[in-house]
Amino acid sequence: MIERKRDGAELTTAEIQEFVQGFTSGEIPEYQASAWAMAVFFRGLNSRETGDLTGAMMRSGRVLAYPPHSPPKVDKHSTGGIGDKTSLILAPLLACDELWVPMISGRGLGITGGTLDKLESIPGFNVNLSEPEALGQLERIGLFMIGQTADICPADKKLYALRDVTGTVPSQALIAASIMSKKLAESLDRLVLDVKFGSGAFMQTRSDAESLAASLVATGNEMGVQMSHLLTPMDQPLGAAAGNALEVIEAVECLQGRGPADTVALTLDLAECVANVPRSQLERWLNDGTAWRKFVALIEAQGGDAVAAERLGEVHRAPVIEDLPAPHAGTLMSIDAGRIGRACVQLGAGRAKASDAIDFAVGCSAIQKVGAAVQKGEPLLRIHARTQPSLEAALPLFQEAIRVQ
Amino acid sequence: MIERKRDGAELTTAEIQEFVQGFTSGEIPEYQASAWAMAVFFRGLNSRETGDLTGAMMRSGRVLAYPPHSPPKVDKHSTGGIGDKTSLILAPLLACDELWVPMISGRGLGITGGTLDKLESIPGFNVNLSEPEALGQLERIGLFMIGQTADICPADKKLYALRDVTGTVPSQALIAASIMSKKLAESLDRLVLDVKFGSGAFMQTRSDAESLAASLVATGNEMGVQMSHLLTPMDQPLGAAAGNALEVIEAVECLQGRGPADTVALTLDLAECVANVPRSQLERWLNDGTAWRKFVALIEAQGGDAVAAERLGEVHRAPVIEDLPAPHAGTLMSIDAGRIGRACVQLGAGRAKASDAIDFAVGCSAIQKVGAAVQKGEPLLRIHARTQPSLEAALPLFQEAIRVQ
Repeated sequence: MIERKRDGAELTTAEIQEFVQGFTSGEIPEYQASAWAMAVFFRGLNSRETGDLTGAMMRSGRVLAYPPHSPPKVDKHSTGGIGDKTSLILAPLLACDELWVPMISGRGLGITGGTLDKLESIPGFNVNLSEPEALGQLERIGLFMIGQTADICPADKKLYALRDVTGTVPSQALIAASIMSKKLAESLDRLVLDVKFGSGAFMQTRSDAESLAASLVATGNEMGVQMSHLLTPMDQPLGAAAGNALEVIEAVECLQGRGPADTVALTLDLAECVANVPRSQLERWLNDGTAWRKFVALIEAQGGDAVAAERLGEVHRAPVIEDLPAPHAGTLMSIDAGRIGRACVQLGAGRAKASDAIDFAVGCSAIQKVGAAVQKGEPLLRIHARTQPSLEAALPLFQEAIRVQ
Repeated sequence: MIERKRDGAELTTAEIQEFVQGFTSGEIPEYQASAWAMAVFFRGLNSRETGDLTGAMMRSGRVLAYPPHSPPKVDKHSTGGIGDKTSLILAPLLACDELWVPMISGRGLGITGGTLDKLESIPGFNVNLSEPEALGQLERIGLFMIGQTADICPADKKLYALRDVTGTVPSQALIAASIMSKKLAESLDRLVLDVKFGSGAFMQTRSDAESLAASLVATGNEMGVQMSHLLTPMDQPLGAAAGNALEVIEAVECLQGRGPADTVALTLDLAECVANVPRSQLERWLNDGTAWRKFVALIEAQGGDAVAAERLGEVHRAPVIEDLPAPHAGTLMSIDAGRIGRACVQLGAGRAKASDAIDFAVGCSAIQKVGAAVQKGEPLLRIHARTQPSLEAALPLFQEAIRVQ
């Protein structure tokens, strides 16, 4: 099978299933799997093969099962960006509709934040529910937001760890299968993808994002899921805040009808793709408190303190808060999302490696948007740091990220 | 380094050395080495990289060292064919010249015979000499013919075993480095290559053989060795015999000036490429007993029975000997070397896997050459088998191999 893929042949469904089963059980050694992954890097997989790989990896572990006649199950997957807190808004918003939102998310790594980390900045919020607990919660409030359990997609975990050390991460087919196998273990009816491109995204160019999106959509369709997708720029951070508690604060603002325009617009764009109701209804739920009450219900269902969530600025108040002033008057030409992301990691908001701890309080807020006219000395953004030295270490990164002309 | 090769970059000498050292010591895990080998399969290595890999693998173990002012060290490498016993003739012939022939050979696997197996059909012949024994013998008689010791090219042994199970054997750069690292551990001044093509060879076409030869020559030159090469057809078996003792018998005939024309001609063609003296002198040594006496000296130096070697047909007489008759009168159009090779393996002359035992006596002799005019019932070749059933199992293979028209 290694040789067949090496020579450009199309693998059969049975071959792919055998490979995934053998690799997961340990019968197929890692040195064969890595050689196969490298052959796939060069030869690719077509959408049928990618679908088969996705399905086989998905079935290597638990797959959620729902009672008959339950509402459509929907979710969103984002390839990750800076300040992207849309999941926190989108999940409760969609649960206002006649939908179930069984959202399984990840943690932050590198410059990309993670929904689980953000949720855990809410005191008491428990992202580790058992499957019966999670399903019971779906029945009651229509959503859960939890982390991936060990028994979801073990094949993907093992293959990803191997790819990470064998130069075989950047294979579009393997990326698509990895993303989709985890998402589709949620047994979704509809999935919307937010594939980002730009300095703060995994894909640097729109055409790379387009190509990944096409691969993800084809894989999802192959698996019988109704797919939709948006290609969204990630050149400047989304919204006005980046950092865990700071993003939850912004999400709360959005859920209470007073969030930044770009965050609200993207959330509605994504929600529209999978919702039963029109955009006007979704907007109403954000503005009339319905979505906020759903978020409160979610927090309380998962052991969190909803009162604390509404005053998270006090709960996680960084000891050192300082504005970054405009060096001179002019127009804000660019705010490099990648650099802002690295500056936040430098402050402690993200992880360099998976075992690192996270500081919920740090990051930046009140980020101005590209195109804004600024006066000399006017704040471009507000830095939240744990200590003065850590602020000073991050300061040049923030300064380099912003161009005023 | 995996990623650099994956992306088509040229690796540095230091990177290649680190890889070979790390892989040999076990610091670099096999799953990374196999992914790297697959990347090399797709991207190739240029001759500098191949030379560096060859050198690093060679230096992973012992490399022969000679006293100063010793004669030029020469050897031949053949990519393997059916009935190819030239090493047995060439080594003593070249040792008649002012040359040292430090020949380290391998065993047969699949349809390709091995020089060590053939030598061991001579009673008492010991192919396992220590390095001091081997070097002492060079000083006395100018040649040794031994097997590879465990401390030669351990990196190649380990990498080859991994390639064998990860679909990365057929990479020309890796093949060239594997062959040359073992050969060049002999610290040669001159090496002649016999790169064969055709049904009984590793390379099926002349152009594939040409390309492999170019790669081997470039690698040898990169390592400072004077290289020459022949591209020789392997569509019909070389000479008149295939099988271990049967081939030694033919080699003895050649060394005594009465061998088949094609075997003698190829041996002289190869010898000419690395000898100090002209072809006429080499021919004289074959015809006047000089080369034969050198072979006797070799056998005796390595514990063998030279008298038995001269009457090997009696020592290893197969119990069942039967001629294959021409089915009708006509011209012998083709004798498929690959099929003859498989027929001999079927008789027990070769190994399907490395741990199989070998039957020295079996094989075929008196093989007619393509172009011969034959009468109905005239012997096309003589089959030597251990038992009647084994002869009958091999018979269809022999019949299919020969076409008379």
